[in-house]
Amino acid sequence: MSIETAIVALGKTLGDRVQTGESVRALHGANESYYDEVLPDAVVFPRSTEEVALIARTCAEHGCPIVPWGTGTSLEGHALAVKGGISLDMSEMAALLEVNAEDMDCRVQPGCTREALNEELRATGLFFPVDPGANASLGGMAATRASGTTAVRYGTMRENVLGLQVVLADGRVIHTGSRARKSSAGYDLTKLIVGSEGTLGIITELTLRLQGQPEAAASAVCAFPDIDSAVAAVQATMQMGVPMARIEFLDAECVRAVNAWDRRDMPETPHLFMEFHGSEAGVAEQAETVREIVSEFGGGDFGWSTAQEERNRLWHARHNAYYAVKALRPGCRAVTTDVCVPISRLAEAVTETAAEIAQSAIPGPILGHVGDGNFHAALLIEPGHEGELAEAKRLAHAMAERALRMGGTVTGEHGVGIGKKRYMEAEHGAGWQVMAEIKRALDPGNILNPGKVVEVN
Amino acid sequence: MSIETAIVALGKTLGDRVQTGESVRALHGANESYYDEVLPDAVVFPRSTEEVALIARTCAEHGCPIVPWGTGTSLEGHALAVKGGISLDMSEMAALLEVNAEDMDCRVQPGCTREALNEELRATGLFFPVDPGANASLGGMAATRASGTTAVRYGTMRENVLGLQVVLADGRVIHTGSRARKSSAGYDLTKLIVGSEGTLGIITELTLRLQGQPEAAASAVCAFPDIDSAVAAVQATMQMGVPMARIEFLDAECVRAVNAWDRRDMPETPHLFMEFHGSEAGVAEQAETVREIVSEFGGGDFGWSTAQEERNRLWHARHNAYYAVKALRPGCRAVTTDVCVPISRLAEAVTETAAEIAQSAIPGPILGHVGDGNFHAALLIEPGHEGELAEAKRLAHAMAERALRMGGTVTGEHGVGIGKKRYMEAEHGAGWQVMAEIKRALDPGNILNPGKVVEVN
Repeated sequence: MSIETAIVALGKTLGDRVQTGESVRALHGANESYYDEVLPDAVVFPRSTEEVALIARTCAEHGCPIVPWGTGTSLEGHALAVKGGISLDMSEMAALLEVNAEDMDCRVQPGCTREALNEELRATGLFFPVDPGANASLGGMAATRASGTTAVRYGTMRENVLGLQVVLADGRVIHTGSRARKSSAGYDLTKLIVGSEGTLGIITELTLRLQGQPEAAASAVCAFPDIDSAVAAVQATMQMGVPMARIEFLDAECVRAVNAWDRRDMPETPHLFMEFHGSEAGVAEQAETVREIVSEFGGGDFGWSTAQEERNRLWHARHNAYYAVKALRPGCRAVTTDVCVPISRLAEAVTETAAEIAQSAIPGPILGHVGDGNFHAALLIEPGHEGELAEAKRLAHAMAERALRMGGTVTGEHGVGIGKKRYMEAEHGAGWQVMAEIKRALDPGNILNPGKVVEVN
Repeated sequence: MSIETAIVALGKTLGDRVQTGESVRALHGANESYYDEVLPDAVVFPRSTEEVALIARTCAEHGCPIVPWGTGTSLEGHALAVKGGISLDMSEMAALLEVNAEDMDCRVQPGCTREALNEELRATGLFFPVDPGANASLGGMAATRASGTTAVRYGTMRENVLGLQVVLADGRVIHTGSRARKSSAGYDLTKLIVGSEGTLGIITELTLRLQGQPEAAASAVCAFPDIDSAVAAVQATMQMGVPMARIEFLDAECVRAVNAWDRRDMPETPHLFMEFHGSEAGVAEQAETVREIVSEFGGGDFGWSTAQEERNRLWHARHNAYYAVKALRPGCRAVTTDVCVPISRLAEAVTETAAEIAQSAIPGPILGHVGDGNFHAALLIEPGHEGELAEAKRLAHAMAERALRMGGTVTGEHGVGIGKKRYMEAEHGAGWQVMAEIKRALDPGNILNPGKVVEVN
């Protein structure tokens, strides 16, 4: 009973879909954040739920950790095999299985990415709204309870996963949820698995809620004199109940990064990027309300557009902001933060954070999904520079503590992974032990993504 | 170690808030559905979370079941002490603790009813939207994942509970969720407790999402020639993405009952009752869209009103429909059903159900929250008439099986209780065992509402 014997046993059934070469392992040992590389012992490429169940049974028998892998875009080291074992690469389970246009839902395999899904949906008049920026896999997005720019209107993966097929640690296959829009039939296992980061089960199929493409859409860009006025305008907009499709904040440094990366010439002050969805009349009405709010808070020109091309350009710029920001300091790594606070505390939280970063020795542009109270600082450090890493960790820690003090959370959308585990006790108190009790009940051998989210020893 | 010794121990601390008199026990042994009376051994009235924790520790020590009690409006026997033990009456924990108008949330104790909460919120411009008809307690509504007429727009208790304080079986007190609008911080314990029917923990506080009172609201009533056209109009409305605040179906028999109970004179054919919320322009736009759809499907006069009084009268009639329907057969009991199917199957499901009931020997008016695909038949039987009970059960069983066949659920909003447990295996397969594994992990002594939702022996 060992990881080695598990890999041998898997190889007998799956042949060359069990790979142990250095390069494929290195690819699955890297991450987009600042965590050290951790190579899995093997990378396995299943093609069906039955194969995943077989893999789970084999790994359970041999005590071999299983770490699911989507596209590797996690920012908290979720997909790193920190206890060894196999990386379970879902890229060969990436099909769109079924679209029910009448019910506005679909069934997909976990390796399908959100962009691939939306490409396939284009002709149906429907789309899948959750948009974390990166072209992540839908299984990974569900596992981390991802969200992003559109959550303010359409919700996160929590609201948009209707049901799952899941392989448990012992190889049992369960179905959660149903295609009905609501149900009171027992414990909500769908919501338990969403956000469990591969520690309770391996997602092998998802039923997702879809949205109708809006009749009309428009975007707006607006510069503000300072952070406080921009964020206060967001608070007022949300409190007015305007059904914003997107409302994104970028601080001056972020705007500078986007200008450079995307060849734009926005004034280098804090900005809001906005999008409106609805009927023609509804979009016009929303935009008028926001235009008034923005002007009241000292916002500048309301750069309004209904042109698809301009909208695409805007959101392309926003989606690439993480890469644009990293390019501010070539060769750097980013310590990302991901706090989310009640809307009433947002201006205070962002302003205090910005002041603290300004006084530090490292750059840390701030941007965020402010309609939800969620924002990030990307703390840019030189690889291998211990002092900078310590400074970034100090700043990230201060942000996390501030969020908790304000009744918020240390992670709005990136998840716990290995980076936020140290805050779980502070955030959840005894609830964190309850999570561990659930983990022990469902995965007594601790083979599913061990070392993440909970502490079971 | 016994129920008796637990009650004696509780009496020493709580004095006359532990009651064993016949009448108070009878009150807590009754139910609004057709289930037989089951008297608890005692009724206990806690006043604080600390007292609930003490009660849990005492009951755990003595092996005494705890069955939380809100207002007793459950339709599936949730609050019946089927294994004996205490009924935990939360009516003395009914305070509104805090309103955060800026964040549009509030904190309440579980015994507070939805009407009492909305009464207290009136001056704030906010309201709590979930509306199951009955003036249920918010703790009970969370425990059963209740919804009702407004879920189509505002979601169910699943979407509207942001966080909980919960006393576990061993007396530990946990807090779930945060006041942030979203979080990826670990397993979603809030959503696990919502809908767990008191079997995993006792809710002692709720943080609820509130909504701004809409700028404009209007209602409409529309008669249809037959069930099929009414339901097809609903399907089309939902597929058009009209953000209905309410869209309710009543069949001809239901309308007859409401006419008699509420002194109205609606034509006795299937009806839709609708409500629109939004800006003035938005409401007008929605109503125009629906008016066109309704007319396309053969609906009659679109009885439109923006007058608050008329709207109140309409929803008063709808809220009392259960009692109106029961009055069709004085002295009867109702076997209620609560299926929910994907919208695409709704017309088929309602039509088949109506045909089957029409061929049976008992009346069974149909009404429902059709925008969600959820509908009920109230099967009216003579108390003690075994043949009628068997017939009602046969019809209810056929509805449940049909819902499952169509990819739906046997309970859209009433919960499992004792009435729907027999379907859990069919609906969830191995997932039902997983629920039991979670129950065993969190309540190893099976003292929390034993006999409900899961089977742990």
